[in-house]
Amino acid sequence: MQCVVVYDIVDDNKRGKIADVCQDYGLDRIQYSSFLGDLAPTHQEELMLKLQAVLGKLPGNIQLFPICEKDWHARRIIDQKEESDGKESEDKR
Amino acid sequence: MQCVVVYDIVDDNKRGKIADVCQDYGLDRIQYSSFLGDLAPTHQEELMLKLQAVLGKLPGNIQLFPICEKDWHARRIIDQKEESDGKESEDKR
Repeated sequence: MQCVVVYDIVDDNKRGKIADVCQDYGLDRIQYSSFLGDLAPTHQEELMLKLQAVLGKLPGNIQLFPICEKDWHARRIIDQKEESDGKESEDKR
Repeated sequence: MQCVVVYDIVDDNKRGKIADVCQDYGLDRIQYSSFLGDLAPTHQEELMLKLQAVLGKLPGNIQLFPICEKDWHARRIIDQKEESDGKESEDKR
């Protein structure tokens, strides 16, 4: 099941470790503090327990949103790459 | 319908404007570049068109994930506030 994980954590060190754990679970980084990937419900639970253990008692907000097949296909995406790749020469013509 | 909007935009000015548009649509900021809120499918479409117009041809990634009622109730949250509020006195006892 696809999941989005979004977190807001002040402590730089903890924030980095939270990202490491998300990556360990095979999630892909879609933004500085957001990950996306496929996780079974038991792994969702396990991931959140690990993230809780990493965060300890420090302040922070971590949200995991499971996304069913139907919603996944209804997601909307804008994805534009840097135009400069190989196009720089166009500006010089 | 609840929606998560996550964006990754390099240009500071555009990123700020994207946030403004999300706020105009009544979404709540859950992180520096992520918003959450209730949007009907027609408004989801409209929001993405506006965000596309704001971004123009600059590079960026914007993703909107609709979340059905069932998934919404299955979301997992860790939310810890700063402990210092009102607890500072405890340390001084």
